[in-house]
Amino acid sequence: MSDTQLVRESALRSFGRKVLVQTGMSEPDARLAIDVLIEADLRGVYSHGVVRLPIYIDRLRAGVMDPAPKMQVLRDKPSTCVYDGGNGIGMIVGVRSMEVAIDKARVSQAPSFVAVQNSNHYGAAAYFAEQAADAGMIGFSFTIGGINHMAPWGGRAPILGNNPFAIAMPTPCGFNVVLDMACSVAARGKIIVAARNGDPIPADWALGPDGLPTTDASEALKGLVQPVGGPKGYALTLMIGLLSTMLTDAFFGSEVTHLYDDLENPQNIGHLQGAMPIDLFQDRDRYDMRMEKAVREVQGTEKAAGVERIYLPGEREYISRENARREGIPLGTGVIDDLRATGQSLGIDFDAEVAGDG
Amino acid sequence: MSDTQLVRESALRSFGRKVLVQTGMSEPDARLAIDVLIEADLRGVYSHGVVRLPIYIDRLRAGVMDPAPKMQVLRDKPSTCVYDGGNGIGMIVGVRSMEVAIDKARVSQAPSFVAVQNSNHYGAAAYFAEQAADAGMIGFSFTIGGINHMAPWGGRAPILGNNPFAIAMPTPCGFNVVLDMACSVAARGKIIVAARNGDPIPADWALGPDGLPTTDASEALKGLVQPVGGPKGYALTLMIGLLSTMLTDAFFGSEVTHLYDDLENPQNIGHLQGAMPIDLFQDRDRYDMRMEKAVREVQGTEKAAGVERIYLPGEREYISRENARREGIPLGTGVIDDLRATGQSLGIDFDAEVAGDG
Repeated sequence: MSDTQLVRESALRSFGRKVLVQTGMSEPDARLAIDVLIEADLRGVYSHGVVRLPIYIDRLRAGVMDPAPKMQVLRDKPSTCVYDGGNGIGMIVGVRSMEVAIDKARVSQAPSFVAVQNSNHYGAAAYFAEQAADAGMIGFSFTIGGINHMAPWGGRAPILGNNPFAIAMPTPCGFNVVLDMACSVAARGKIIVAARNGDPIPADWALGPDGLPTTDASEALKGLVQPVGGPKGYALTLMIGLLSTMLTDAFFGSEVTHLYDDLENPQNIGHLQGAMPIDLFQDRDRYDMRMEKAVREVQGTEKAAGVERIYLPGEREYISRENARREGIPLGTGVIDDLRATGQSLGIDFDAEVAGDG
Repeated sequence: MSDTQLVRESALRSFGRKVLVQTGMSEPDARLAIDVLIEADLRGVYSHGVVRLPIYIDRLRAGVMDPAPKMQVLRDKPSTCVYDGGNGIGMIVGVRSMEVAIDKARVSQAPSFVAVQNSNHYGAAAYFAEQAADAGMIGFSFTIGGINHMAPWGGRAPILGNNPFAIAMPTPCGFNVVLDMACSVAARGKIIVAARNGDPIPADWALGPDGLPTTDASEALKGLVQPVGGPKGYALTLMIGLLSTMLTDAFFGSEVTHLYDDLENPQNIGHLQGAMPIDLFQDRDRYDMRMEKAVREVQGTEKAAGVERIYLPGEREYISRENARREGIPLGTGVIDDLRATGQSLGIDFDAEVAGDG
């Protein structure tokens, strides 16, 4: 990131909570939604942190997201259900629907999956998968993306999202092993951050609107992102999208409207949340012993030249979190400008929040 | 492939069955195991077809795979179990364990997962995921690979497999949508086929034993394969490996011996098989209607210059299968030489089988 300022977590939480409450969200919901965003920032996943707050606020104020959603469980069965998010902010729907999956898994003693409809962009998938991991389960969280900006392999029109998913497994090593990836070479959120800060992007991340590779982040946002591994990334993003939408009436393909450009229609985003208790299969002590052995072995692998340390997926984010809680979250000046403007429009002073923080 | 010969499916089935029976396998098991391999060849996934038969025969004859395994269900619960493959050939253990997952899902009306230990290299993951799709369920099949030839990101020692997984969803369009991918840029099986046939490989597929990129397939087999998307592919292969092994006592990391080079130790390969009935979430008619719309929309996407047709994952394999059943399976001469030698060592005449076929 080019020009950054360290902002304390508590200041961001306070600012974000006030802003969300101002749009009609309840205090507890606002607190929870901002927690999901700040966790992403703490973990160094800035692309899915408070950089997204302005668009959520825009959607809430435009009336295409409901600040006080009626969320309900449909087709309720012991280990599955359809969860209707009532067009609430995705963070809340994501957390609540995963709580349902975890409860069902605990009570029914079976792998439990909750298919979600009428949700919205839910931020970083890892948060939800880790809810399950923290409960001693393997967590799965799949979602369709909020913007179509990938093409099927061989195609040139954006009818697929860059659909992310996360899988988390607990370890006895202080952090969960967490895979959290979208299906493009780079997350579009990173392109958004680059565009916000005026930074260039690598040439293999995206195609511009002319269908040619571009290093201009703003041009890339008008074009297509490239799937990781070509046809593999296409197949993966398609499958994640279908898993997230075909079990409910959530939107897919051309039904998906644009998170940023369309402030007239609800998005009807779909997710699939899963929780699988480890002790159904293996005694937890033995699982922990084997998992620790696996983690230590990966960490201890002979390193390539110039590499200081080998990380497990999720470990680097854990370390980032420890640092950021202590030292503050580095936010780009473009992001701060946007937060300031969002706050101003709702009568919340971003700079006063930051300055007033101990 | 350089030099190929068309061989009829029925001849390959007959040859393979006889060879497997000769090693002590029962007639039905041999029939089923060869079906899994030939399905891969029919689908054009030659890297996981009969090209692998010689190593399975070698392992059976060396006594490190059991031709008549005692397979058993452990920790049996309504929607989960641990399945011990009794060190049987992976194709049989894969099919049987997925049958258990499907039965449990049907009876318990819940997503059902079966964690497998004491198995072996099971071939193409798609076969098992499609068992579930053909039963009206979403199929998941994860496995650890039979050779460590990937390093953690930043590492230089091969302690990870190129772990493959498949997810399949039924459609009303004549084929299942099937994601089946390993976590490297290219499947190691493709490198094996290239080495067999003396073909070069692209420079981004693998590193030679010196740690540098190579286009020599034989050198690549002694080195490391490269993860797709760099750290993403590393995180993915690690997670698939952990999912496949940590719920049982299946081997992980340095415990994994080499499929080809170690004929003294059983591999204790692990899988995780899952089946999730669609009608728990959505009426099947409505699912079919929405899935058909999705499939048609992807197929109808505006094409890039020079592209004739856009395929869904699994669709190209379906078309390949139709053609190969009619016209025969194209096998490289290197592969045929190996099959001939394998047959000879067991008194089965490959050429007589091929010639004798209608």
